[in-house]
Amino acid sequence: MSEQLTLYTAKICPFAHRVELALAEAKAGYTRCEIDLSNKPEWYAPKVNPASKVPAIAYGGPQTSPELPAPESVKIAESLILVEFIADLYPDSNILPKDPVQRARARFFIDVVSTKVLPAYMGPVARGQSFEPFWEALDALQKLLTLGKTYAVSDEYTAADIAITPFLARMEVWMKNDIGAYKAGEGIKAAAEFFEGERFKRLREYYEAIKGRESFKATFDENYIKEKYALRFAPMRQQVQAAAAAKA
Amino acid sequence: MSEQLTLYTAKICPFAHRVELALAEAKAGYTRCEIDLSNKPEWYAPKVNPASKVPAIAYGGPQTSPELPAPESVKIAESLILVEFIADLYPDSNILPKDPVQRARARFFIDVVSTKVLPAYMGPVARGQSFEPFWEALDALQKLLTLGKTYAVSDEYTAADIAITPFLARMEVWMKNDIGAYKAGEGIKAAAEFFEGERFKRLREYYEAIKGRESFKATFDENYIKEKYALRFAPMRQQVQAAAAAKA
Ligand SMILES: N[C@@H](CCC(=O)N[C@@H](CS)C(=O)NCC(=O)O)C(=O)O
Ligand SMILES: N[C@@H](CCC(=O)N[C@@H](CS)C(=O)NCC(=O)O)C(=O)O
Repeated sequence: MSEQLTLYTAKICPFAHRVELALAEAKAGYTRCEIDLSNKPEWYAPKVNPASKVPAIAYGGPQTSPELPAPESVKIAESLILVEFIADLYPDSNILPKDPVQRARARFFIDVVSTKVLPAYMGPVARGQSFEPFWEALDALQKLLTLGKTYAVSDEYTAADIAITPFLARMEVWMKNDIGAYKAGEGIKAAAEFFEGERFKRLREYYEAIKGRESFKATFDENYIKEKYALRFAPMRQQVQAAAAAKA
Repeated sequence: MSEQLTLYTAKICPFAHRVELALAEAKAGYTRCEIDLSNKPEWYAPKVNPASKVPAIAYGGPQTSPELPAPESVKIAESLILVEFIADLYPDSNILPKDPVQRARARFFIDVVSTKVLPAYMGPVARGQSFEPFWEALDALQKLLTLGKTYAVSDEYTAADIAITPFLARMEVWMKNDIGAYKAGEGIKAAAEFFEGERFKRLREYYEAIKGRESFKATFDENYIKEKYALRFAPMRQQVQAAAAAKA
């Protein structure tokens, strides 16, 4: 693989993190371009991603400075599509299993992440809602973990694991630091439920295995996420709790 | 490929239709089991798909009668996962292009079907809502059609085309027969907009190419859909229009 690859990404973004994980797993050479989401460069939407979101990749064409993407390069967006793209470029990375049944299992796991876990994920942290719908989504995910295997579908770390990794990692940060729109102390209680209780024993083991991977260590900056989340979610507590009190 | 494959499907269901198209394109041998969605057999959820939906596939294990699926077979659900599964089983079917960039294009088209077209699709027919959000979703889809190519991403019929085919075909039926929760005559008007106007010229040509394929002819029973839709959507008109009148 000798075509140039430029990744437009943001350290804060869990979707972009998926693509960084896939590139790290594939040991791909690439140019990284951090996009400041609070002050997006004006060339980004017209020249890279009309949806104006990260992640996006510019692939092929001449190597240019990332701020001047070449018209000849192909622009691709959407994290899950990019993970499959990297798996296709680097078949030996095992990001997608070779066996069709295992591939289907990986995709089914990803579907549960997309349709169950993510819709429930922001409820507690950004809206101060009950944890229960989020816990139920995690129950559904945990049920899919293949018995006796390290990762979601096998002992290989695949696209299935990549899909959930950034969200579990960010969850740990906001829970353990009690950052969120929920009532003070609820994050700490939730962290105990997840990291010490019986209910998520299997999922927790799984998450610990994920955290041990080099690709994770190379792509996750816990302190950075903690600082940014404190700025973003902590102010929500006052608003949400004041609104709840006014209603009661 | 010699493993047995049983498809649990329903002629009415557009998601199941995707999988029938993929199997027809792959010229796969399989056992077809029609599930009556209005009277689902009690073994279906526990033995085939816990979500109790079609489509689902039982793959491998001994060949049994479909009503007695073998515990040894692998059970797989979700139409898009099944289409990719069939593409993986039959790589020569070209259901997924070989080139990673083309594959990413196909997946991006599918993403627009899932996140834009389908959420807007039921508005007019099932809820009597304005056609405009649905037209805008079709605009977005039409914009993705690769210039000068017969199908979505190339001159091959791929998973991208499979994802949208059942919905365009069913749309033609409900529009042209004026079946839906919208006001009488609105379906006929919408059919003129789609099939005669300037706005959807490219999408309409594309749809005509799709309808010419053997896989489509072998899997779509227009009269059956028309009769079922008349039973399902026609009664909604009275309810929805009466409710709208009461509100006004
Ligand atoms: N469905 C997209 C979601 C990407 C997304 O929502 N990215 C966010 C950051 S986490 C973004 O770029 N939002 C635009 C903005 O913040 O202006 C994917 O999976 O790639
Ligand atoms: N996301 C699923 C949707 C499948 C679906 O909704 N199937 C419907 C019929 S079109 C179904 O089986 N519904 C259950 C029922 O009618 O009881 C897929 O893509 O396969």
